[in-house]
Amino acid sequence: MAYEFYYWPWIQGRGEVVRLALEYAGASYVDIGRGSEDDGQGVAAIRAFLASDAAQPQPYAPPFLKAGDMVISHAANILLFLGGWHDLAPADEAGYLWAHGLQSMVSDFVKEIHDTHHPISNALYYEEQMEPAKLRSEHFLEIRAPKYLGYFERVLAGNPAKSGYLIGENPTYPDLSIFQMVAGLRYAFPKAMARIEPDFPMASRLHDTVAALPRIAGYLASERRIPFNEKGIFRCYPDLDD
Amino acid sequence: MAYEFYYWPWIQGRGEVVRLALEYAGASYVDIGRGSEDDGQGVAAIRAFLASDAAQPQPYAPPFLKAGDMVISHAANILLFLGGWHDLAPADEAGYLWAHGLQSMVSDFVKEIHDTHHPISNALYYEEQMEPAKLRSEHFLEIRAPKYLGYFERVLAGNPAKSGYLIGENPTYPDLSIFQMVAGLRYAFPKAMARIEPDFPMASRLHDTVAALPRIAGYLASERRIPFNEKGIFRCYPDLDD
Repeated sequence: MAYEFYYWPWIQGRGEVVRLALEYAGASYVDIGRGSEDDGQGVAAIRAFLASDAAQPQPYAPPFLKAGDMVISHAANILLFLGGWHDLAPADEAGYLWAHGLQSMVSDFVKEIHDTHHPISNALYYEEQMEPAKLRSEHFLEIRAPKYLGYFERVLAGNPAKSGYLIGENPTYPDLSIFQMVAGLRYAFPKAMARIEPDFPMASRLHDTVAALPRIAGYLASERRIPFNEKGIFRCYPDLDD
Repeated sequence: MAYEFYYWPWIQGRGEVVRLALEYAGASYVDIGRGSEDDGQGVAAIRAFLASDAAQPQPYAPPFLKAGDMVISHAANILLFLGGWHDLAPADEAGYLWAHGLQSMVSDFVKEIHDTHHPISNALYYEEQMEPAKLRSEHFLEIRAPKYLGYFERVLAGNPAKSGYLIGENPTYPDLSIFQMVAGLRYAFPKAMARIEPDFPMASRLHDTVAALPRIAGYLASERRIPFNEKGIFRCYPDLDD
């Protein structure tokens, strides 16, 4: 039975790390938000699901995944689930908790990236918070992005398997997310990333390695990969890129 | 063997939801940061652990938990681990993922609460970002806090067991965290919470129920519970409480 993946159809957003894992696993899934309303899919189906009180567990917001009767919310939590069933993380307890700890770092990173353009409120437009956004972005690019990337770099360097991946010999779901972080930062902050990225050669190389994995390469070349745009997490606002 | 819990000794902070779970479980643990440097503990031991490249997995920052050879980072991830071993969450896959999804919401909430006083950068003092902090707090109190509390209220109301807890008949680790959220919000925003909290009677009652659980009551009355203060997540800045 195919998974049902619920996320907004117009952005990569918080859901993209899940799409990447589903694609890399070769899992059978329906991207509900991108389906047709005539088939009971589309945004209307997402909103209907969220408005219904019938089901517990009740997710707060997309992304969430339906797997048979189960409803799993939050990107990192969905990856915890997929990791176990699709061999995208170590199977032993220490290993899957390590993978999930790394993914929790990615979740924190995503939140900070989002807040570069929305430091005051996501109920306001970017244009209404440009001044604090500029300040927050400066601090993000000078301090926070190098901290996160530096941590992942250290983990990559410290992997005893020396595989170029974060854990062991093979890609795990956090590797796919590092690809997404690097790709997104390059899109959102091209000037700053040209300056920052050379300090993190292993993360940079991991991006390229993941992009070349056959199923990921196929996905990225397909229409299933939504282009970056200024509605998602990674937004290219030249005023913020310095 | 006792767990070793690593977190800053002067705040409740992001670590408090873990302390609550350890206490409620009656688990044997050493709060390393609060120990004596003469015993190889204290803040020096935390910093030494973070600086060492010897061990993988390498945490990025406290809180983290050592359980035998395992090192588990991120509060929600630590709770995922403790939930399984101490019966603080359902044992079946749908159930533990549901508990972890709720805890992921708590993590998001904590981040937003932190950013009310640090909307620009955690490398700056509050006093250097008071103006955006005021704006962010207004939006937080008007929109975000009611959204989060409203979601938890809906989950409490929707629990088929009608137990007053989030999941099933008994307390699980997210219940302990809801206690912490309500207690912290009351501390940080007393004026606003007096206005907001009556809209969320089940969350309010859950706070009181958890506070009265014998092991939690014992913990709260002990010196192990660090008082709220203006270095943690929940800070009482009257300028932000409106």
